[in-house]
Formats: sequence, structure tokens, C-alpha cells
Amino acid sequence: MAPSGYRGRLREVLEGIGAEEGDELEVVTPDGQTFVGYLIARPEYADEDVITIKLRNGYNVGIAFTEGTVIRRLAAGRAPAFRRGEIPPQDPSLPRVALLGTGGTIASRVDYRTGAVRPAMTTEDLVSVIREVLELARIDAEVVLSLYSENMTPRDWSLIAERAHQRLVDGYDGIVIAHGTDTMHYTAAALSFVLQRPPVPVVLVGAQRSSDRPSSDAATNLMGALTVAARSSFAEVCVAMHHWHSDDEIAVHRGTRVVKLHTSSRDAFRSVNAGPIALVREGRIEVLAEGLNPRGSEDYRYEPGFDERAYLLKFWPGMRPSVLEHLASEGVRGFVLEGTGLGHVASSWIPVIRRLVRDGVFFGMCSQCRFGRVNMNVYDNGRDLQAAGVTPLDDMLPEVALVKLMWVLHRAHDLEEIRRLMLTRIAGEIGDRSEPVRLRP
Amino acid sequence: MAPSGYRGRLREVLEGIGAEEGDELEVVTPDGQTFVGYLIARPEYADEDVITIKLRNGYNVGIAFTEGTVIRRLAAGRAPAFRRGEIPPQDPSLPRVALLGTGGTIASRVDYRTGAVRPAMTTEDLVSVIREVLELARIDAEVVLSLYSENMTPRDWSLIAERAHQRLVDGYDGIVIAHGTDTMHYTAAALSFVLQRPPVPVVLVGAQRSSDRPSSDAATNLMGALTVAARSSFAEVCVAMHHWHSDDEIAVHRGTRVVKLHTSSRDAFRSVNAGPIALVREGRIEVLAEGLNPRGSEDYRYEPGFDERAYLLKFWPGMRPSVLEHLASEGVRGFVLEGTGLGHVASSWIPVIRRLVRDGVFFGMCSQCRFGRVNMNVYDNGRDLQAAGVTPLDDMLPEVALVKLMWVLHRAHDLEEIRRLMLTRIAGEIGDRSEPVRLRP
Repeated sequence: MAPSGYRGRLREVLEGIGAEEGDELEVVTPDGQTFVGYLIARPEYADEDVITIKLRNGYNVGIAFTEGTVIRRLAAGRAPAFRRGEIPPQDPSLPRVALLGTGGTIASRVDYRTGAVRPAMTTEDLVSVIREVLELARIDAEVVLSLYSENMTPRDWSLIAERAHQRLVDGYDGIVIAHGTDTMHYTAAALSFVLQRPPVPVVLVGAQRSSDRPSSDAATNLMGALTVAARSSFAEVCVAMHHWHSDDEIAVHRGTRVVKLHTSSRDAFRSVNAGPIALVREGRIEVLAEGLNPRGSEDYRYEPGFDERAYLLKFWPGMRPSVLEHLASEGVRGFVLEGTGLGHVASSWIPVIRRLVRDGVFFGMCSQCRFGRVNMNVYDNGRDLQAAGVTPLDDMLPEVALVKLMWVLHRAHDLEEIRRLMLTRIAGEIGDRSEPVRLRP
Repeated sequence: MAPSGYRGRLREVLEGIGAEEGDELEVVTPDGQTFVGYLIARPEYADEDVITIKLRNGYNVGIAFTEGTVIRRLAAGRAPAFRRGEIPPQDPSLPRVALLGTGGTIASRVDYRTGAVRPAMTTEDLVSVIREVLELARIDAEVVLSLYSENMTPRDWSLIAERAHQRLVDGYDGIVIAHGTDTMHYTAAALSFVLQRPPVPVVLVGAQRSSDRPSSDAATNLMGALTVAARSSFAEVCVAMHHWHSDDEIAVHRGTRVVKLHTSSRDAFRSVNAGPIALVREGRIEVLAEGLNPRGSEDYRYEPGFDERAYLLKFWPGMRPSVLEHLASEGVRGFVLEGTGLGHVASSWIPVIRRLVRDGVFFGMCSQCRFGRVNMNVYDNGRDLQAAGVTPLDDMLPEVALVKLMWVLHRAHDLEEIRRLMLTRIAGEIGDRSEPVRLRP
């Protein structure tokens, strides 16, 4: 059948060589890159002058058709033809998974002329990326938001949490949330505090390279996330992303223990001060952590609400404490300080902190070292900071502490209650001292 | 000979069992810990009721003598006696190294009752910690500062740089700077910009555990630093600290490529977006990087001066841009933003940034991901931020970019000049794109 969705000069060339959907093509770009794969119908997210082929590794790749692009037909249809929007009837015994799109690279198309990325995801788009999902679960996809994740705010976390909560109440077997990677770890922490001990997994997933690029991790990450959502024995708010370099291993990170630790690599997401809670390999889930909330948990609590009057501030040499007073005068009710080493800021900050604490402002201390826990009992300065009212936050990640403080401020109305809640382990955000954690060599 | 420097009940017990310096003792603490080692004279830094013994691994350990501590004399003097302040004449053909103390755990004693740490270092103290240094170099030690490193400011960087410069001009064969670890990487960056292409190495060194604790890394780190200062073929501003878990390997990091990446582990310092430039193992230096500034370089330039009107700010979801305007109104001339992912902040920040850039305020972008480089050409938002005047800072570490901006602001008087200097590679702070760098698994 003639390939659908293509227009203009690209369509003329495809017709000229008699290319049909499913035919094996070779596409050579003007700069000499060669791609071999099966022609598929233009997906919704691709431009009309971008030819999309399915590579042998299962990825789709979109290649801009420009002056000098050469397309050859190698062989007649060998792969099943993929038609836009066509989804075969699914096995009703499969688990039901709700897929919530919020934007980001995983659910986006790249405009090859400007490099712009626009979020776009339907179940059809998803299936056009990777047909194997149909064997995993019955998927209901919906777009909740279409945002670059750096534009997300606590109000967006609440929106996502509310929609996920509805889907939990609806009885889905799992929730997958497709999310931009820039702030996915902040959202994961937020959902961890709002959706406590959920009955089924809530899995955030992203991609470091968009699904129409050859090296995209969208398909494998999504498959891993869907596997967890549909079949895991545990029900945690978690993040599923590539594990190290492996193309066939997905790491599952606890929502309060994960950060984006590399700007661009596919294995950018890492559990910090803890290991991943599970790995997904060849469709099998290997559980690594103990004491996880089990699927079917009846202790589910929906605890929505964030107060944005929290502030995360990274300390550095020469930084003056007057900024604390300014921010408090603007209404900030609590600070998470990213101190140095075991949890320090300059001694010159102590009088300002003491004064603000007396006014009821919370100060929590994390470390900018990224790995390890604070210990404010080792040095004079740490002791003095504690005496001034600073609360050491153990091995909580600064980003997680910020999100938690927003969540706590919504609930607690005096300093003692804020401190008590900040030090109460709500969603695995504070480490178990019995398990020593090391930087991996 | 009778052990010197001990007082009170401890002295009575030592005299009672006839213990002399160099005798092998067993000390059992009330909580059952057992230490075996040679009795040495009380070092300057130890309290009078703390017994100091030299363990077989060469470390000194100070043990608080309290009710219930048991001391046994196992054998008569087997080790050479160490007397406080006694330094034998040194071989005049050895390299001359200047050791500058600035404070920190490496040159400190612990008060076992309060946990307080006070800096204290003389050549004698140093020798009491590790006598082998005498075989490496003739060492002139002096105390430049006695600060917890979280209390350091750019003025202190200038003081340290000036003293190191004098010692370089004096013709020393190497400089070692003992420094608290909390902000050692900031100081290392600062010295890298001020002491350009020095004729001999300038090596910062710290300790994660003080030298009178059993697991102290002070001795091995100092030996590694002195080895580099005295004998390396390269002359770089660098940091020498434990390499991973190994007790017999010291990593040498470029001063503009290193951060403290763990709050407490001995291998806390890591080169980021680069490898260490050298390793020291069993007294031998293995050079790993190419193109290093050679010992004997005649291109040395002393470029002092920092302008503190620079600001490092970490972005997070929901953070409002009004803080930029407040800080600019307080005199800030340039910002380093720790953005998300490839270098983003919320789109809502763009109008504020554009306005401030028009007023001549510099904005540089780094990533909070810690590893990897920014790329502000991939997404619309990155392009819009660049159009508003934000300068992407490649793979420069945010802490290094802050220090560099202070150094640049002292020299550049308009925005174009600031941008040009920020993107000029001065001291290895911007990566070479040809060497791919990976997170280690």
C-alpha cells in the first residue's frame, strides 16, 4: 500500500521508486549518514517532509528530506505495515495501564529545521513508536499537560497528582507518567508525598533523546515503565530510565532517591545514597530493595497540597546572608540550605539565621556534595548552626527536601511541627543508616 | 625515655607501668575498642589526657584516657622514639617545598570532649604525624590562615594566592597548601586563575578525618601532595586526595575540574567531566593527562584580584525570577545559573533576564546535573534564553564558573568583555570536546 501522510517532493520521490509501507529502504543524508529500515506511515508527530523508517532495532527514526537526500528501495515489504491510528483489538485479560502525558522529549517531535520540540502524544503515537506495548497492557493514554519540564511548578505537580489519583481510584493496574527529564526527579518526589502507599505502581518515565532520533531511549524506557506498571510486585512512586550503558536494562528508582546526574547521557538518572529498587531486563523485573509497598496495598492515602513559600539556596564562599532576610520579608517560611561538606555555611550567617528562626522561619540543612549525609555534630560550626535553630536533614537530597518542605508547609503551622514532619520518614526520603552506601567506582 | 607532654592521671598510669616512648602498648577503651601501637610524645595538637600511639600502619591515633581505659605495656621500645619538636638535619639535596597551612581537618586536633576541631600546624606537628616526609623534601611550614573552609571568602583566596606567589618567586620546588575540604575546590579554582602556568606545582591537600583518628587520611594525602610538589614533571594548580577506596593511591585533580562529591568518604574528591591528571602510588607519579604545564615553565603569570559582585543561583520548579532583580539592585554584576538538564530555567524568567542583560548584567548557564555539558540549542527554551542574552558555559562546573566570574569581573568592564573572557579557556576549566567523558559505573 502507498505510504500515507507524506506530501510534496518527498511524496513524489517515494512514488517514483514505488516505495510502499513495509518496504525496506536505504536513506542517505546529504552529510553521508546512511539509515536502513522499513518505511512506515508518517506518524502524527513527524513533519510532512520527514521520512520515518523503522530500524531493525525497533526504533523509529525520522530523517529530514532535503536537497541531496537519496532514498533507495532495497526490498519489498518485509515488515508488517504500520498505519497511523490503527490499533488492533487487545486481549481483555491484559493489565490496564493509564498513561498520562505531561510533555517532554519522550512524547515529542523534533522540528528538524529549528530544533524545536513540541509535545504530542496519543495512544496511536505511542504505538507508532513501539508496537510491542500492545502485548504488555491495555493502555489508555491522555495528555494532562504539554510542558517543558523546566516550566513545571508545584501547581502542575498537583494537577498530575490529582489525575493520577483519579486513575488509581478508577482501578487501573498501573500508572505511567511521561515527563520531561529536566525536573522529573522533583515531580517524582512531589508525587511520592501526595500518593502515599498507592495500591498500584506510579511510574514516571522520560527520554533523553526524542523518539524520532536513531539513538532514542524513548522506546526502551517506555517498555520498562509499562512492564513495572503492569506487572511489578511492588507499588511505589518511581522513575524508570536506562541503567548505565546497557540498552537492555532499565533501572527503577525510588521517587525520593533519584536525580538527573548527567545533562545528556541515556543513563542520566541515578539513585543517590541508595541503590535502584528494581531492574527490568528482557521483560523481567528483578526486585533489589526490601520492604517495598506491595501491589494491592490497602493503606493508600491521597495527601495533596503544596505551599510554595519554601526556598532552596546553595551556599558558596563569600555569599552574604542578607538574601535570607530579603526572601523572608517576601514571605518565605522555610529554607533548605545546600551547605558545604557535612552541612555548613559560613559562621557569619548564624546571627541572621538565629533571628529568622525566632520569627518562625524553618532552616533545614542538606549538603551540596550530592552523595553522603550531613552530620552537624563534628565541627563547632555545625553545632553552632544547630544551636541557632538549623535542622540537619540527614541524607535527604536537597531537591527532595525542598519539595517535602513545600508539602510540609501546607500542613504544619508552627516551627516545631514543621521540624517534626521534615524529620519523619514519609516516602523513603530519609536513609536507613544500616545500609552503607558508596559512590560506585 | 619517659614519655613527654602527658599530665595528670594519664601520666601516673604511664609511669606506673613503666611505659617509655617507643614502647609497644595496648590500649583498651571503656567501650571495648583495642588499639596496639608505639607510644609517642604528646603531639602539640593533642590534649594532655589523650594518649597518642603510632599504629603499625603508620597512622597516629589519639585515644581519650577516661575512667575505664586500660593501658598495657606489651614490649620495650621497638620503634624509634619520636620527640616533639625534634627534626633531624635533612639532606640539602632534597627538593624544597613550602607548606602553607590554612586550617581544616588535615592540620587540626580534635577535642574529644566537645568534638571541636582547632587548626594547628607546625613543621613539628607535621613530622609527628608522619616522619617519612623528611625523606621526601625539606619542608618550610607556615600558617597563613586558621579557618574552617566554609568561612573562607574571596579575600582569603587572595591572601593564600599572594603567599603562594611569594614562595614561587622565592624559588621553592613546590607548594603544598593544607586546606579544609568543605570549600577546597572553590579555592583550587581561584588559585588556578591567579597562578597561571606556575613554574612548580601548587598542590592543595586536605583530610576527611583528622590526623589523630585511626582512619585518618591526613598522612597518606599529605605524602601524596608532597610527592607531587617535590617531584612531578608537571606544574599545575591541583588537588591531591585519596583515589576511590584505595589506601595506597592518591588522585591528582586539576584545580578547575574537581568537586567534593561525598560528605564524608575519604575518596570524596572527584574530577568531573575529566579524569584525574595523575595518580600517586607507592611514591611514584603516573601522569594521565596530556598537555600539562611543565615544571620549569617560563610562562608564569600572577593575575590576582576578585570582584565579589558575582552570584551563583540554583534554579528549581516554582522559583520566581524576582530574586534576580533584587540581587542586581544590591549590586550584583553577573549571575551563574545552575539550570536544569542541558541548561534551562523556566520561560517565565526570560523577560527579567532580558531586562537585566540590557542593563549590563552577565548571565552564564551551567547545569545542576553535575556531569555533562550544557547545550542550549536543542530546545526552544534554550534558544530563547540565549536570545535574551544568556551565555552557555559548556561543561564548566558551576562552582568554577562562579569563581571565574569573580575573577573576570575584576578585569572586564563591559558585558562583551565579560562574555569573551568567560568563554576563554584560562586554566583547563572548559573541556576538550574530543575526549568523551562518562559517568563511571
